[in-house]
Amino acid sequence: MEKIRKEFIIGIIPGTGKQGQGIALRLGIAGYDVLLGSRDKEKAKRIARKLNLEINKKKFQGMQNEEVAKEANLLFVVFPYEFLKASIEPLIPSIQHDTIIIDVVVPLTFEKGYASCYDDVPYNSASEFLQMLVGNKATIVGGFKTVAAKKLQQINEPFDIDIFLTSDDKQAKEKVKTLLEHLPGIRVLDAGPLIFSRTTEQMTAFVINLNKLNKLHHASFKIVSTKK
Amino acid sequence: MEKIRKEFIIGIIPGTGKQGQGIALRLGIAGYDVLLGSRDKEKAKRIARKLNLEINKKKFQGMQNEEVAKEANLLFVVFPYEFLKASIEPLIPSIQHDTIIIDVVVPLTFEKGYASCYDDVPYNSASEFLQMLVGNKATIVGGFKTVAAKKLQQINEPFDIDIFLTSDDKQAKEKVKTLLEHLPGIRVLDAGPLIFSRTTEQMTAFVINLNKLNKLHHASFKIVSTKK
Repeated sequence: MEKIRKEFIIGIIPGTGKQGQGIALRLGIAGYDVLLGSRDKEKAKRIARKLNLEINKKKFQGMQNEEVAKEANLLFVVFPYEFLKASIEPLIPSIQHDTIIIDVVVPLTFEKGYASCYDDVPYNSASEFLQMLVGNKATIVGGFKTVAAKKLQQINEPFDIDIFLTSDDKQAKEKVKTLLEHLPGIRVLDAGPLIFSRTTEQMTAFVINLNKLNKLHHASFKIVSTKK
Repeated sequence: MEKIRKEFIIGIIPGTGKQGQGIALRLGIAGYDVLLGSRDKEKAKRIARKLNLEINKKKFQGMQNEEVAKEANLLFVVFPYEFLKASIEPLIPSIQHDTIIIDVVVPLTFEKGYASCYDDVPYNSASEFLQMLVGNKATIVGGFKTVAAKKLQQINEPFDIDIFLTSDDKQAKEKVKTLLEHLPGIRVLDAGPLIFSRTTEQMTAFVINLNKLNKLHHASFKIVSTKK
């Protein structure tokens, strides 16, 4: 773990929403330091103080998204899909070369009472769209998409979920896997190339519908398998 | 259960492949009688005898697909996607009006070492394609797609999986749910309208890849949720 802690400076943009805060909490509990970004620096600092209190360790630091993009070489991107392009484009000059981006974006929409993914997502998934936007400056690893923000935030509840990683860069995926395997209650599964973010994004809408239709709360996926 | 047993005559076309046999076994163990179809009547009879022996109860009867289509009013359709149209069209005149079809078809293809769904599936999912093919003669309920055949066949192994039902007909979906809830080790979840078969079909390819990439065997999905 020390090796990973030294290799990576972890940032979340934005780190102030529900999903960003939830991921931050899980990273902080595992012992990682996390930079929380926001357009509003004061808000980022306030949320960082709140989360430090919540886990009773000084693990979080608030700053502007742009500063986080400059500092971090492992960057969680959690912008709402609708604002993804407009939010990430101005930050791209600040992103370090060879940054690993963990893309948590889901192109969710709600129609006739059901969650689904937008039909017209460029490049067919938020992950592939984001890879196109950042070009060769960063490697995208899709992850955490299927996990409910609320579930991540409930740090005193039982927690036992699977996280699916998609990426065309096996080495980056392996590094992210090693990093995330230190998070209690999380199993990290390799889900193949980045195109399979199309599936994890759809699974996110799917599980939201399962909640509503079957009176479940913050449902997530677990993979069960047999020995042979 | 008696009410459902009286209401439905259950058939599987074909009932002689791995997926068909696996579903048959689970139905037979729960106490349902099942008609197993094949193009080859002798083969259907042979498989029926084999499965009767396996569960030590006379629950299975083998006949031609066409006879099954005539007899059954709850019909599992398990044809390989590539032969779906050619296999089902000649049977449509035999299918009773108001039959419920449980569609288990997945448009799987393998490219560059990964499972995925064909890009060019008419109407975007096998379920929607099948609904178009049978027209108003039958109601489609998507189900069992994500479950590995082998897992269904391992009747002496621990079994605890979720099955996702998709249908535009809530009443049909509810009936299928009631019927399947008698199968030990199976939880039945409502996954919304038939368009969400697009997701369950992709999830099937996804879970096949998870097996290979993470050295799992016959992986299936379980949904975990919190109390609030």
